[in-house]
Amino acid sequence: MRGYGMLGIGKTGWIEKEIPRCGPLDAIVKPIAIAPCTSDIHTVYEGAIGERTNLILGHEGVGEVVEVGNLVRDFKKGDKVIVSAITPDWNSVQAQAGYGMHSGKVLGGWKFSNEKDGLFSEFFHVNDADGNLALLPEGMDPATATMLCDMVPTGLHGSELAHVQYGDTVCVIGIGPVGLMGVRGAVLRGAGRLFAVGSRPNCVNIAKEFGATDIINYRDGNILDQVLAKTNGAGVDRVIIAGGNVDTFDEAVRMLKPGGAIGNVNYLGSGDYIKIPRVEWGVGMGHKMINGGLMPGGRLRTEKLAALITAGRIDPSKLITHRFEGFDKIEEALMLMKDKPKDLIKPVVTIKW
Amino acid sequence: MRGYGMLGIGKTGWIEKEIPRCGPLDAIVKPIAIAPCTSDIHTVYEGAIGERTNLILGHEGVGEVVEVGNLVRDFKKGDKVIVSAITPDWNSVQAQAGYGMHSGKVLGGWKFSNEKDGLFSEFFHVNDADGNLALLPEGMDPATATMLCDMVPTGLHGSELAHVQYGDTVCVIGIGPVGLMGVRGAVLRGAGRLFAVGSRPNCVNIAKEFGATDIINYRDGNILDQVLAKTNGAGVDRVIIAGGNVDTFDEAVRMLKPGGAIGNVNYLGSGDYIKIPRVEWGVGMGHKMINGGLMPGGRLRTEKLAALITAGRIDPSKLITHRFEGFDKIEEALMLMKDKPKDLIKPVVTIKW
Amino acid sequence: MRGYGMLGIGKTGWIEKEIPRCGPLDAIVKPIAIAPCTSDIHTVYEGAIGERTNLILGHEGVGEVVEVGNLVRDFKKGDKVIVSAITPDWNSVQAQAGYGMHSGKVLGGWKFSNEKDGLFSEFFHVNDADGNLALLPEGMDPATATMLCDMVPTGLHGSELAHVQYGDTVCVIGIGPVGLMGVRGAVLRGAGRLFAVGSRPNCVNIAKEFGATDIINYRDGNILDQVLAKTNGAGVDRVIIAGGNVDTFDEAVRMLKPGGAIGNVNYLGSGDYIKIPRVEWGVGMGHKMINGGLMPGGRLRTEKLAALITAGRIDPSKLITHRFEGFDKIEEALMLMKDKPKDLIKPVVTIKW
Amino acid sequence: MRGYGMLGIGKTGWIEKEIPRCGPLDAIVKPIAIAPCTSDIHTVYEGAIGERTNLILGHEGVGEVVEVGNLVRDFKKGDKVIVSAITPDWNSVQAQAGYGMHSGKVLGGWKFSNEKDGLFSEFFHVNDADGNLALLPEGMDPATATMLCDMVPTGLHGSELAHVQYGDTVCVIGIGPVGLMGVRGAVLRGAGRLFAVGSRPNCVNIAKEFGATDIINYRDGNILDQVLAKTNGAGVDRVIIAGGNVDTFDEAVRMLKPGGAIGNVNYLGSGDYIKIPRVEWGVGMGHKMINGGLMPGGRLRTEKLAALITAGRIDPSKLITHRFEGFDKIEEALMLMKDKPKDLIKPVVTIKW
Repeated sequence: MRGYGMLGIGKTGWIEKEIPRCGPLDAIVKPIAIAPCTSDIHTVYEGAIGERTNLILGHEGVGEVVEVGNLVRDFKKGDKVIVSAITPDWNSVQAQAGYGMHSGKVLGGWKFSNEKDGLFSEFFHVNDADGNLALLPEGMDPATATMLCDMVPTGLHGSELAHVQYGDTVCVIGIGPVGLMGVRGAVLRGAGRLFAVGSRPNCVNIAKEFGATDIINYRDGNILDQVLAKTNGAGVDRVIIAGGNVDTFDEAVRMLKPGGAIGNVNYLGSGDYIKIPRVEWGVGMGHKMINGGLMPGGRLRTEKLAALITAGRIDPSKLITHRFEGFDKIEEALMLMKDKPKDLIKPVVTIKW
Repeated sequence: MRGYGMLGIGKTGWIEKEIPRCGPLDAIVKPIAIAPCTSDIHTVYEGAIGERTNLILGHEGVGEVVEVGNLVRDFKKGDKVIVSAITPDWNSVQAQAGYGMHSGKVLGGWKFSNEKDGLFSEFFHVNDADGNLALLPEGMDPATATMLCDMVPTGLHGSELAHVQYGDTVCVIGIGPVGLMGVRGAVLRGAGRLFAVGSRPNCVNIAKEFGATDIINYRDGNILDQVLAKTNGAGVDRVIIAGGNVDTFDEAVRMLKPGGAIGNVNYLGSGDYIKIPRVEWGVGMGHKMINGGLMPGGRLRTEKLAALITAGRIDPSKLITHRFEGFDKIEEALMLMKDKPKDLIKPVVTIKW
Repeated sequence: MRGYGMLGIGKTGWIEKEIPRCGPLDAIVKPIAIAPCTSDIHTVYEGAIGERTNLILGHEGVGEVVEVGNLVRDFKKGDKVIVSAITPDWNSVQAQAGYGMHSGKVLGGWKFSNEKDGLFSEFFHVNDADGNLALLPEGMDPATATMLCDMVPTGLHGSELAHVQYGDTVCVIGIGPVGLMGVRGAVLRGAGRLFAVGSRPNCVNIAKEFGATDIINYRDGNILDQVLAKTNGAGVDRVIIAGGNVDTFDEAVRMLKPGGAIGNVNYLGSGDYIKIPRVEWGVGMGHKMINGGLMPGGRLRTEKLAALITAGRIDPSKLITHRFEGFDKIEEALMLMKDKPKDLIKPVVTIKW
Repeated sequence: MRGYGMLGIGKTGWIEKEIPRCGPLDAIVKPIAIAPCTSDIHTVYEGAIGERTNLILGHEGVGEVVEVGNLVRDFKKGDKVIVSAITPDWNSVQAQAGYGMHSGKVLGGWKFSNEKDGLFSEFFHVNDADGNLALLPEGMDPATATMLCDMVPTGLHGSELAHVQYGDTVCVIGIGPVGLMGVRGAVLRGAGRLFAVGSRPNCVNIAKEFGATDIINYRDGNILDQVLAKTNGAGVDRVIIAGGNVDTFDEAVRMLKPGGAIGNVNYLGSGDYIKIPRVEWGVGMGHKMINGGLMPGGRLRTEKLAALITAGRIDPSKLITHRFEGFDKIEEALMLMKDKPKDLIKPVVTIKW
């Protein structure tokens, strides 16, 4: 079979491989819609997960089941399925503790395009099909559904980490595709006033459509000062970090009220230390919670988030700015992600076999 | 001063009283918008809180501060304020434990038209002004703001008690004004599919507008059967009870999945026991949480919920079906609440002095 | 192989069966210590789970692994293991939601001596060995370790369901083996004053040793009155129910403060409805949480609770009043459980093959 | 009246002042047992809260009420009371949100020896007597009870911030008086294995008595390496920080499992940033919660913690290594705190007037 991936750090290309073997709990799936992710770019061009050779990329996709193991209960050949980007080992002690995304080790639930080949392939392997697949709801566009693999669960997790409550003032830092879902997720946990920090016009428009009440443009000055000015110095109850770097926490802690929380869902690619300012963190005693976590993956999560689309609560199709058809277009889509044209939010490739 | 109230069980009328005295922490307020509540009807006609004579009714209102005690920090004469229906003693041990609505004793935070005169009066007394008043946000219609006193906080508390999570299937039983806010509150905690149980056309329409995906009409048969049929027997994750009686819990427990929760915000006026079916409650071990609670009151809560109106998340003005002008109209508004015409959701009386 | 079980409702005896087959994730285990449970008695003599024929009983045991499936990572032949009474399907949606004990359906994690043969057998089958076994810590007495299968996790779960906090006044109703662990569990969540309701002298002594500060004997009168008298009418913060029946909830709700919680871990064998008194439940709004749940099972839980023995926090060996040696003694031990002599708390049978 | 305090940064002495005035909610109290705290030393000698002149020090004490305001309900002249070090304004929005220790502003509940005169005085003022005093339980030694003002609530708060659960492996860094109570607090939330990091012999002995299973001496090498070695590289579930500085978080994060939490109760006196290592924090996504907070103060808390002494769960009298008699001895006791002799844990001065 053929797949598109990483030949080594900084190099991509088509790769020929054997079709993966299906264990008794597993499924083999053929993609019908796939989306590249900024993480794929980090992986290839920043070496974010270290050297990998001939690793097929991709962890966002919808497909059709072509084979299931003999212990799989709920899925069968021909089923259209949404594949969670994070596929925990559900019997691990971490999953039993509620942290399946860290099954086996920190971030251990992230297997696709990390510990094994990803989804940009004619066929791909899913561990624990019953635990990690979800049926594509009837009538749901596969392209839209690819947003349920990573963008939606990651964005919405921000509000869980930040413990958003009814009427809270929330600041979402970064409004790429994850941050936009972070905005919508905060609304759906009860956020009142909602600052969205970003500058790209199409993102700003969607942020407003998704429920942002105020846009903060970092080009207009320090975002901390802007938030404090707009809140008469009171600051915010919650900060969702979906962009920036280790320095972003400095501003986030400073704008946070005591009793507030930060929910980070952003990959931090460089820097030795996350910067938590001592004095503004209440000299250690300010009850400003600092949380950060990988999206919860798996079947239940995907089913629940799909229900949000079905019920009309979220519309992640708005994130899709570039649509391609045909498996071969994955290269073009990935390069788009690398080049980040100004109007790009998210590309999707749909595939008819 | 003059007020409208309960002369005794079953009898209402105008009452002449002294203007209440203002303690050092307190405020005296003149109403500018008031709303009668079903509880007022329970109080007068069902004797729900026992015999009371010459008790001025009313616990939903917006007003203008006419006097504050010398220890009040944040409010002053002339301020337009929203008055929480529940006004805790914030230094009580119950409030310190997070249950201010039970300050001093069960339901002890409910003082207006219960332990002291209510708001249907030329002047009324508010204990702990700093703790229990909230400024009327600039531009907010006082009539709409009266919904923040009881209907909004009670309705939204249902989802807190039921622990609604992203994508949950939720059933809201009863779509009077509280239940309608219960529907909206569930959406704002992340509900996916949302069953609303009711039959009155205008309520049904608002329930849909507020986010209900399915309407269950009890005239079409047993609501349990309808919910199970619509979920292929799976049932729901959460039930918010905003109508019915002690038998409603029987159906609620039966439709609940293990790990689910009931959030009751409905006053239960008769019956010796809440009915929890033993077998369907998992013979005691089904992890079906049964919660019920009076709305959290006070300033912070009111401010947070007002922020939801300001941000456009909720629009409780839709509940107001009947509008009156003039203090004397409170009698007519209250009688409307008693007679419950089919198109009534909520009446409000606005007052220009 | 030979096992001891239920021939039909009301009848027990030795049963001859095939050795169970080991699936790829499973283990076959030979018992080295087993304990009968009151549930076994409910199953046989009350038909609690319906008719069963030739079902081998038993769900508390420690054993030696004789075979593992080829996908098992962490256990191998010869390992001494503690077997959780509850063995969830960890990839089920219920387990993903944190309720593995209800995997597949309510109480679905309870498989031994319910949906398949139990542990009173020369060999028994464990589903998902990696998820449901725990290594017997070096030096731990297997007889003591059998208490980690059900008595300890069930008893301690009471405090989780009742949300015990530092300094809470707690009432534990019922001080059989589960209730005694309920007492100890409450101490280890921070209980202050702790009422234990029971009468048998050896249980009373252990309850005191485990941390009960007051013993309530129901023979001295109504337990509600006694608790209220001892608390000057204030009642308690938490009630853990480990004995009694559907009426017990009536007393429990009445003794509970608003903001308090009930944690039921008792199997309720008869009665149509759990009795929740309407008025004392705050006419629906008293914030008295009613929780009840089957013990969480599986590997992590067993490992964590074993750590409590190792650290000296709990000593469940005190529950063992009757010790037997030899596989054939399981009949005698079970009959003891049926006859409940006054000095019985828990019998254990150890086996040398 | 006469008090002992801070004349300016670095200078202490006796100060003559007017007896404070009692507001309608307040109390004036005469001390009968007082204890100096490390914070007093930070205040005077490190200028931790900035310049203060003629500020009477002290925030740990038990006393006798000499006057109450006319709105005080539950206390009267002659009552023996425990005074919480943190005395929130209970009607503030922060307290309503559950963060009374930050009433008005970050750390705003800390008033004694910060915003107003402290307890090392012939008379001192307590704001909101009903909310912030607790009756000294009959028979409780006032010297022991002074530990309930700050050492016990601060130490036990560590486990709340770190979310200790049954069987967790916990590391308590620092075993001065707060850390020792941190050890005991972790046991009383269910800690299994418990590492206590310290070196002073008497502290080590008490840590063991309080439930530490392993002592880590930083003189034996890096504490991270020691913890990892003792856990076969697995690390711990929870870290309670009760000593050290901004660098301590670096080690704490590194020893933490994903899904774990840090609970800091240590005052951080210097350094620009708390150091959170990026990679070990899971590149932002490791679900390692970082919490830090001032002790919750007030009446309910003190009552609950006093119940732990009465029930025999904690014995903070073991912290008291130096006992003095007579008001004038406060100077000597404070100097002891400054000089920190090797055998010092906590000095207490009892006073007979």
